[in-house]
Amino acid sequence: MTASVERYILGVDLGGTNIVVGAATADGSRRFAIHSEPTRSSEGADAVVARMARMIEAAIAQTMKETGCKRSAFAGVGIGAPGPLDRERGLVIVTPNLGWRDFPLRDRISNAVGLPATLDNDANCATVGEWWLGAAQGGNDVIGVTIGTGIGGGLILNGQLHHGASDVAGEIGHTTIDSTGRLCGCGNYGCLEAYASGPAIAQRARELLAGDEPSSLTAKVEGKLEHLTARIVYDAAKEGDFLARLVVRDTARFLGAGVANLLNIFNPDVVVLAGGVAMAGDTLFEPLRAEVRRRAFRPAVEACRIVPGTLGDSAGVLGAIATFKAQTPGFV
Amino acid sequence: MTASVERYILGVDLGGTNIVVGAATADGSRRFAIHSEPTRSSEGADAVVARMARMIEAAIAQTMKETGCKRSAFAGVGIGAPGPLDRERGLVIVTPNLGWRDFPLRDRISNAVGLPATLDNDANCATVGEWWLGAAQGGNDVIGVTIGTGIGGGLILNGQLHHGASDVAGEIGHTTIDSTGRLCGCGNYGCLEAYASGPAIAQRARELLAGDEPSSLTAKVEGKLEHLTARIVYDAAKEGDFLARLVVRDTARFLGAGVANLLNIFNPDVVVLAGGVAMAGDTLFEPLRAEVRRRAFRPAVEACRIVPGTLGDSAGVLGAIATFKAQTPGFV
Repeated sequence: MTASVERYILGVDLGGTNIVVGAATADGSRRFAIHSEPTRSSEGADAVVARMARMIEAAIAQTMKETGCKRSAFAGVGIGAPGPLDRERGLVIVTPNLGWRDFPLRDRISNAVGLPATLDNDANCATVGEWWLGAAQGGNDVIGVTIGTGIGGGLILNGQLHHGASDVAGEIGHTTIDSTGRLCGCGNYGCLEAYASGPAIAQRARELLAGDEPSSLTAKVEGKLEHLTARIVYDAAKEGDFLARLVVRDTARFLGAGVANLLNIFNPDVVVLAGGVAMAGDTLFEPLRAEVRRRAFRPAVEACRIVPGTLGDSAGVLGAIATFKAQTPGFV
Repeated sequence: MTASVERYILGVDLGGTNIVVGAATADGSRRFAIHSEPTRSSEGADAVVARMARMIEAAIAQTMKETGCKRSAFAGVGIGAPGPLDRERGLVIVTPNLGWRDFPLRDRISNAVGLPATLDNDANCATVGEWWLGAAQGGNDVIGVTIGTGIGGGLILNGQLHHGASDVAGEIGHTTIDSTGRLCGCGNYGCLEAYASGPAIAQRARELLAGDEPSSLTAKVEGKLEHLTARIVYDAAKEGDFLARLVVRDTARFLGAGVANLLNIFNPDVVVLAGGVAMAGDTLFEPLRAEVRRRAFRPAVEACRIVPGTLGDSAGVLGAIATFKAQTPGFV
């Protein structure tokens, strides 16, 4: 008998604002060197690739130091990036936040660090991360909803990540909940994202504050409403501010309509909401679950738990590691 | 070598208005004795079961006559019924249109005709029928939308019918497209079904006609607006009646919002619309496809064909036969 050698996988979560990188053992039980840096996309794609490569090398060095493993113990790099993507060719097709088009991200990273790499959608990765090691563990049909600057999603159906016919499945943020409603950044009207993304939450708060009703929100941003964020709204709601609670409750109702649609369509075991929204706590989740109960069929409601993600910023990195495993022969 | 003996399977599509029964060879290439009778649910469950059993026996007799096969050549009966169902126990849990609760339909039919039986949702069966032998052939990810008295649906994901965690997946009619919109029969507001089911189409036409605008619709029902149906509206629209065209175009926009949601969530190869709506033709399908293009992401639109069903009333029967095969060991 020979002692089996532990293998390590690297994960990268490329976002419009931050890059998060880390490493883990293939079973996910030990995680190393998870760290974040600003993306600085304005410096151009080459600079972003160089930064990602440097962060990966730092994660390798740190992991080798902590575990005493050799560089040959690293099997490869899973990358999560904003879509739409061409997974087969490893391309980022279009990413408005980064300004990239048909960019061969997978091979650029693979060449830079001398390791195999895989590419998948960032919201898919966050969903897979929460399914593998976080709040959605044990689910067979899992829907992930990632809420930040935009609203994304991932679908795990019968234990398999669902990519769809052209790799764009899971665009939950761009499902219509009000067909004659608010204009969305995608050009459509009434998308969930136009109501419940971080910027949309801040915008709805601004619209309420324009009515001159008293609210602690005004003081929190020293009267500069353009500085309002979803996080500030959540915090004020927890402290009992009425207007902030109203904004959060409306958010819960919009998200509840979107999540109820997912329950009636898929009948999943778990819906996990990841991203900053996970910090909102019961202020958001209680009315959200109530709205879902109001809108979805009882057998679908009873079969499903609706939970905040537990992995925070690591969800995308850990999910990218899991998708590398899933796309690489030799890993279970 | 022994000559292989052809096997036959029976299918039943139980609806609130009609029962359709028929038989087919296991490969679906030959179909026999597909016929329909009124359900007459007011006579009670026993009478409906007796009618179904008699129709099955008639289909067996007719098939034996046409093919010269023996009764032993019949492998069993696939049943499609309105949900929610408990597939494992073969129960119809609740069916408002039939007034049944926890009714052991599968075993009652199996005992009545002395053959194994399986039970699945009627909209799932119609979707599987169109996938197996109709408009959705060749698809890997197929969404079926059945439009009649209600709006149902079925999901075929990666070549497998998706039932969900508690067998209620596919309730596409009860997805919200206007969160503060029309009251739906399910108690929720703004469901797709509240806008685009047959009765909802007739109701929207009545609301427009109440404004006294001239329309051929009034003459078609001799002023009795309660006699309006979706079919009459479709026919008047084809003849160029402006108000009817308006109703059909609005229907297309509501359905388009619902179908666009499915494209952005699933990224399917095929969306097949079955039921009476398939008769509406380009009057409905052209603006419907335009609305989907307006609302869904381009890669999802380009990957998907949106088509009317081609099997008509046989879709449910043929799909029930296919689901019997899928749930019965020994059939591929």
